[in-house]
Amino acid sequence: MEQFQKEVDAWTGQFTPQYWSPHEILAQTTEEVGELAREVNARFGHKKKKVTESDRELGDEMADIIFTLACLANSQDIDLSKHLQRVMDKCYKRDNDRFEKKK
Amino acid sequence: MEQFQKEVDAWTGQFTPQYWSPHEILAQTTEEVGELAREVNARFGHKKKKVTESDRELGDEMADIIFTLACLANSQDIDLSKHLQRVMDKCYKRDNDRFEKKK
Amino acid sequence: MEQFQKEVDAWTGQFTPQYWSPHEILAQTTEEVGELAREVNARFGHKKKKVTESDRELGDEMADIIFTLACLANSQDIDLSKHLQRVMDKCYKRDNDRFEKKK
Amino acid sequence: MEQFQKEVDAWTGQFTPQYWSPHEILAQTTEEVGELAREVNARFGHKKKKVTESDRELGDEMADIIFTLACLANSQDIDLSKHLQRVMDKCYKRDNDRFEKKK
Repeated sequence: MEQFQKEVDAWTGQFTPQYWSPHEILAQTTEEVGELAREVNARFGHKKKKVTESDRELGDEMADIIFTLACLANSQDIDLSKHLQRVMDKCYKRDNDRFEKKK
Repeated sequence: MEQFQKEVDAWTGQFTPQYWSPHEILAQTTEEVGELAREVNARFGHKKKKVTESDRELGDEMADIIFTLACLANSQDIDLSKHLQRVMDKCYKRDNDRFEKKK
Repeated sequence: MEQFQKEVDAWTGQFTPQYWSPHEILAQTTEEVGELAREVNARFGHKKKKVTESDRELGDEMADIIFTLACLANSQDIDLSKHLQRVMDKCYKRDNDRFEKKK
Repeated sequence: MEQFQKEVDAWTGQFTPQYWSPHEILAQTTEEVGELAREVNARFGHKKKKVTESDRELGDEMADIIFTLACLANSQDIDLSKHLQRVMDKCYKRDNDRFEKKK
């Protein structure tokens, strides 16, 4: 993730401003989540379309969302790797708490 | 709103199933909110495009979102008018609470 | 809907600014859609919680979304009733197109 | 990212089912994006609250979103690293196309 944030920063470095405002990036995140939602409905919903009709892969839509998050993180000097680690720690911590409660 | 929910019900009545599952409708809501987000960025963000380039009006995108909510509400026998009234009541109630605290 | 937009306008009229920027209102819409998503998962997903545990009704969450849309519409002088009518017209128009293609 | 997906897989491995349906995971993504939206409005919007009032960091909210995407990716055997690479390739590819057009 650290590597990806650096690559995003290198690429966006050619633009002015390098990053949009947090609200604008968030709107982009919302837009990309909407595209993922469309693909999820198309593949797993009632209105199934043939997979060949789908021009975008699920993985590409998810990567687009992560790209917008990397932009928001970079614009605010946030190291996402650190927070991903915290998410995992929190998961295990919660399990331990539950376990202890069972005693 | 009551009128709109009835019109939606009349139109969807020709399909089987009349309404998708709540999760599928929610995914549609998410998709439509994403389209609204794109229009907001296009009109009010850095990447301004000429309004003429925009093929959808803001109002249409908002109406599409409300359409999906009317579907979800109809599928669960929810009268949105009642809940819209509750939202307004809550607004004024909160103001009154604040006012009383100032005494 | 016209009536609701007027009520929202009367209530927001006491604030300065009366309406936030489109990006800020959109972020609020996104937040409210997130709360609806949580309720949908809670009621119709694997992690079913007892309905009594749920402090907010589905209808309230939907109304909160529509409230934010009414704010965005009001701030841009958009009459949502007109666009809701257009959505319905589009639905029937599309059906007619399909019918004609079948000939 | 590969590493993170593996950690998520190891942790979710203790549950049955290991992953929810795509629609349920998407609803969770939507919920987490809503929480990010709330933080963005709180920090960068009119309704600024003191940062100390904010119990969650922006980075944590973003990591929560990526966690749900890792779940969706794992449940569909998708390697997000590959798609993140494709996003970057697409960025540079598009630039090259633009450059060539300028000739």
